[in-house]
Amino acid sequence: MKSRSDMRKGIEMRWKLLVMVLCCWSLGVTSVNADEGMWLFNDLPVKQLKQKYGFEPDQAWAEKLMRSCVRFNSGGSASFVSSNGLVLTNHHVGAETLHKLSTPERNVYEDGFLARTTAEELKAPDLELNQLLSIEDVTDAVNAGITADLTAEEALTKRRANIAAIEQKSLDETGLRSDVVTLFGGGKYHLYRYKKYTDVRLVFSPEASIAFFGGDADNFEYPRYCLDACIFRVYENDQPAKTPDFLKWSDNGPAAGELVFVAGNPGRTSRIFTTDALRYQRDHRMPFMLDFLRRREIMLQQFGLAGPEQARRAKDDLFGVQNSRKAYLGMLGGLQDPAVMADKVSRENQLKAAIDRDPKLQGAAAAYSTIAEIQRQRTSALRTSISMNSQVFGLAHTMVQMVVEDQKPSGSRLPPYRDSARASLELGLYSDAPLYPDLEQAILADLLGRLCEIRGGDDPLCQEVLNGLSPVERAREVIAGTSLFDPQKRRELVAAGTDAVRNSSDPLIQLAWILDPQLRKQTEMTEAWSEQERQAYAKIADALFAVHGDSTYPDATFTLRLAFGTVKGYEEDGREVPAFSTIGGAFEHEANHKGEEYFELPESWTKNRDKLDPQTPFNFVATPDIIGGNSGSPVVNKNLELVGLIFDGNIQSLVADFMYTDKQGRCTSVHSSALRETLRHFYDASGLADSLGK
Amino acid sequence: MKSRSDMRKGIEMRWKLLVMVLCCWSLGVTSVNADEGMWLFNDLPVKQLKQKYGFEPDQAWAEKLMRSCVRFNSGGSASFVSSNGLVLTNHHVGAETLHKLSTPERNVYEDGFLARTTAEELKAPDLELNQLLSIEDVTDAVNAGITADLTAEEALTKRRANIAAIEQKSLDETGLRSDVVTLFGGGKYHLYRYKKYTDVRLVFSPEASIAFFGGDADNFEYPRYCLDACIFRVYENDQPAKTPDFLKWSDNGPAAGELVFVAGNPGRTSRIFTTDALRYQRDHRMPFMLDFLRRREIMLQQFGLAGPEQARRAKDDLFGVQNSRKAYLGMLGGLQDPAVMADKVSRENQLKAAIDRDPKLQGAAAAYSTIAEIQRQRTSALRTSISMNSQVFGLAHTMVQMVVEDQKPSGSRLPPYRDSARASLELGLYSDAPLYPDLEQAILADLLGRLCEIRGGDDPLCQEVLNGLSPVERAREVIAGTSLFDPQKRRELVAAGTDAVRNSSDPLIQLAWILDPQLRKQTEMTEAWSEQERQAYAKIADALFAVHGDSTYPDATFTLRLAFGTVKGYEEDGREVPAFSTIGGAFEHEANHKGEEYFELPESWTKNRDKLDPQTPFNFVATPDIIGGNSGSPVVNKNLELVGLIFDGNIQSLVADFMYTDKQGRCTSVHSSALRETLRHFYDASGLADSLGK
Repeated sequence: MKSRSDMRKGIEMRWKLLVMVLCCWSLGVTSVNADEGMWLFNDLPVKQLKQKYGFEPDQAWAEKLMRSCVRFNSGGSASFVSSNGLVLTNHHVGAETLHKLSTPERNVYEDGFLARTTAEELKAPDLELNQLLSIEDVTDAVNAGITADLTAEEALTKRRANIAAIEQKSLDETGLRSDVVTLFGGGKYHLYRYKKYTDVRLVFSPEASIAFFGGDADNFEYPRYCLDACIFRVYENDQPAKTPDFLKWSDNGPAAGELVFVAGNPGRTSRIFTTDALRYQRDHRMPFMLDFLRRREIMLQQFGLAGPEQARRAKDDLFGVQNSRKAYLGMLGGLQDPAVMADKVSRENQLKAAIDRDPKLQGAAAAYSTIAEIQRQRTSALRTSISMNSQVFGLAHTMVQMVVEDQKPSGSRLPPYRDSARASLELGLYSDAPLYPDLEQAILADLLGRLCEIRGGDDPLCQEVLNGLSPVERAREVIAGTSLFDPQKRRELVAAGTDAVRNSSDPLIQLAWILDPQLRKQTEMTEAWSEQERQAYAKIADALFAVHGDSTYPDATFTLRLAFGTVKGYEEDGREVPAFSTIGGAFEHEANHKGEEYFELPESWTKNRDKLDPQTPFNFVATPDIIGGNSGSPVVNKNLELVGLIFDGNIQSLVADFMYTDKQGRCTSVHSSALRETLRHFYDASGLADSLGK
Repeated sequence: MKSRSDMRKGIEMRWKLLVMVLCCWSLGVTSVNADEGMWLFNDLPVKQLKQKYGFEPDQAWAEKLMRSCVRFNSGGSASFVSSNGLVLTNHHVGAETLHKLSTPERNVYEDGFLARTTAEELKAPDLELNQLLSIEDVTDAVNAGITADLTAEEALTKRRANIAAIEQKSLDETGLRSDVVTLFGGGKYHLYRYKKYTDVRLVFSPEASIAFFGGDADNFEYPRYCLDACIFRVYENDQPAKTPDFLKWSDNGPAAGELVFVAGNPGRTSRIFTTDALRYQRDHRMPFMLDFLRRREIMLQQFGLAGPEQARRAKDDLFGVQNSRKAYLGMLGGLQDPAVMADKVSRENQLKAAIDRDPKLQGAAAAYSTIAEIQRQRTSALRTSISMNSQVFGLAHTMVQMVVEDQKPSGSRLPPYRDSARASLELGLYSDAPLYPDLEQAILADLLGRLCEIRGGDDPLCQEVLNGLSPVERAREVIAGTSLFDPQKRRELVAAGTDAVRNSSDPLIQLAWILDPQLRKQTEMTEAWSEQERQAYAKIADALFAVHGDSTYPDATFTLRLAFGTVKGYEEDGREVPAFSTIGGAFEHEANHKGEEYFELPESWTKNRDKLDPQTPFNFVATPDIIGGNSGSPVVNKNLELVGLIFDGNIQSLVADFMYTDKQGRCTSVHSSALRETLRHFYDASGLADSLGK
């Protein structure tokens, strides 16, 4: 699934990306079919499970599973798989950390890593893991004081202040990370309390060549042959943490047709979107995003051509961008299918007819017009909006925004600058993870060039930004002159106070000041649209509840959800695609793509090949309803044994942002046996293999 | 320089690309500095050469050089290098033919080729070479009957008819290909008569790995190490043609600082462009083109990931697209430099002031407004214009347009459908060069998806094109159903007549009929704008003549020009870049990029390395004023000995479309010794080496 490029740049970047790039976390609900659904842990689909599968999970089952799950704050899912802190996730979820732990001499990302003792485990520079401990409905408290006579903006301010107060109070009382989550587009607000782990160490990662075997060519395809897994361990007080809630390891993995569950953090879905909103996505936003992604992809490829070290530096970003590009293309392809849109139109017309018949639902009718109008505004703003997706510029801009936002009460600030988020913000801002000036310069040059394209070379902002130089020369000047690559210098400048940041002679800080008004305006516009959409979708959600009943699930919010389904192949181009692939199949696949990049198995596999039964299952597909952010989610059976590890969805599942389909759409997992057996036989790591699930 | 992707798809595609993609062959003149200029062979810069270099070429010198030059109609330059028909050009100019001569079993493009006897020479399926024999000023005849009371459209129609009549008359009288060329934006019209060679056979090509050593990374950079050369032979009556006009081979190549000449066919420059036109290029057209190129680049990369045969099929297109992308980026980077634009603005303001002072030049003042207005129209049309750059669709669309155009008198037809162009048109239309359905399907799917993005998924044309299917499914249906991959079927359908084409059940023909009105409208709009611009630039050219005198050169028109300059290195990032690279340097460069794609020298080089002095010069840079289309041009000394073979310009030269600069801008050539000595010592082809220049 690999939605890293959407959600991977540390918390301050993540939030920015969410606002600027995704810009549509306003969420909702739809009617439910088949194995559809990303269900809340405090409102599980008990009825559906009993009805369809004769299985009735109880509270203890749900609680155990919830506490066994771990969220990678950098954008992914995971689970505890031992009582002493072992955490299992995907290689591609850990990739950012693997890169940060790599040096020209020790390429952890490419070559893999195994700690034979806890002393050898490598501490991640800035990783934050969250374990969800409780969910509380705080809808009334969030809406307190919000009366019908408030404008949308006043309501937003008030609601934001209420949320900040709730989060701060919870943090003060419990010491736990406390996030208010907006569900059903504002129909409900839940308070999620997390235990945070910030001392996280790498235990095992396989070679990139087997984690991402088949590369971009195989990405989102099936059959797959990927050991897309890595293992961390959380620490407390410099000791392996005690984690009594963990998943046991299944001896044999899942059977074909078996009921399985996926517990993880789907990042974002948009299933409540009106057809106007879908048209905006199809005809405007997705083509715009794809142009941006392709541009960044080529830029990173070009950067990597200069030599192997440059290629290494660009690789993580490049994979993320390629992955997003392929994902967007799958989504766009789905939306461009006239049959898909016709289905959405037909369902919307049915709901609109029901709304027309019910005087109590008239608010929903107006909501459609509001959303249509916002799409028009988004469309007209889209082509002149700029983005500055550079890591080092993001740091500078965070500092510039922070000194402004910090002069406001916490509840009135932009979300990442609230007191409750400060620890996470600083974790990213002062991280000593490597930043590469040459790569950042190439990215900045491209972004400045793009700014000139978007606004026109004669635009005053463009002229001010360039300061008489070409984009390439200006980027060279700024990167050569900034001291912000040094985390200590960032810390010192912030510590020196508001005026110091305001009057800094650092060219990157100065550039951030020049661009901040425009970036802030974009953020504020997007916030306002999102708030209006939230309110409109809440009304449509009410209508859906009224028509379809309330046994349903909200759109994804990068919070813990439960999905269910069965292990099952599918048909494609007239051929039957089997549910399981095998270890032996990986060797055949290599032979069929002899000599191609990304199709070379690592030496650990080729030299130990004979030690493992080629029929050992490797990957499998199943029907649970997942999306980006679910990467690293455990797949469990009814007994809460881990049978697999989600790492992808096939290309037919990518339309899941807008609708669930199990005709061909499948999630893709590493089989539990594949990880345990390759640890034993290919990686000489029987100790680690034996400790899984114990 | 490799502008193949602009000008490579056979004549019918080439014309379309020129109209749809380049859309700005309206041409002009500017004031001249340094070694600037792409001079007409009937108006050589005799004064400048005498003044600066003390060299005075006479008529015989010019005529000999002119007749020694050869134009590749597919988009490139070349020269005769023996009395028995040997033609020297670049590997990348010949690449299209090398691909067409390749099969899965015999990869001429990748592995190289050497004919040891004339019997072994490989006949190119559809290559047309042109040798320029004469130039005649026909300005008066073209303008005959065009009076001030005609509208622009009436003038265009009349001028087109005059041109068609002149061309036809010349063809009838001489049997020579006869093209009327518009110079100085319509200030002058010259009739170019060419001898055509259509039996062209491959004699020698090196391996792609040394022809394009360093790949995309080194492209447009320097120092370079490329044997970007290949050798064909023209035939008449199945015998090697007698070519008394050919270039001798220089024994030692050029000395540093030596005066050299480049004779070739620069494709297009836009030096007369007003600042409004440059802003349109900078802020609209180039970003739009770059988005398109990056999209095609990623699409072709993705196609190639499926396997080695797919990669081979996509490779030629991919190189062309990458090359164009890098070239456009260089041009755009130049235009985005505030200093460059300020210089253009300042020069324009000077000219405008002179115009204001001279009542006779008032027409030029209005011309600026006309051009500004056309840029506004171009801008608003740009984002809704579609393009269908697929080879097989191009064939279908040619057939559809041909049966419509053929009902008009020749002079009223769109240019590629005139009688005088029929032979070239049919050469492309009925070519049996391989077309790959899988590649064409992937390209068509992408183009249909792009059409939906550009016009919106609900657009009626989009709906009609998709016919209820997604872009991918529709492309699959059309490509599976068409018979047009078979040249015989194309010939039969055209032979069956207008109604047969009109009522054809071939889904690709049907698709072409659906899209033709829109494509035709775009062509007609572009034609109209170009005609208005032509007239406006002609007035500005008059003003320039009046102010600067008429000793100048017109913008490039893919016709034969002479450039001059000296062999000379330059300074970059504070380092001195030397003028010459060496054969030994290539081996060092390989070692520095060990294991990287495109940096592996072929076996012919590595195993014979010791047979050649490593100090043998390989590539060199010089100051002559060239641009895409000059690829394959001979570089000659005062004695008309071939000292080099143009194959590229450095990235600093790419702004040459809009202005000449010799501060860092250089053209890049293969040294004459490199080709002769590697033929002798690496390719065991002493016979061929000895026959060069004889």
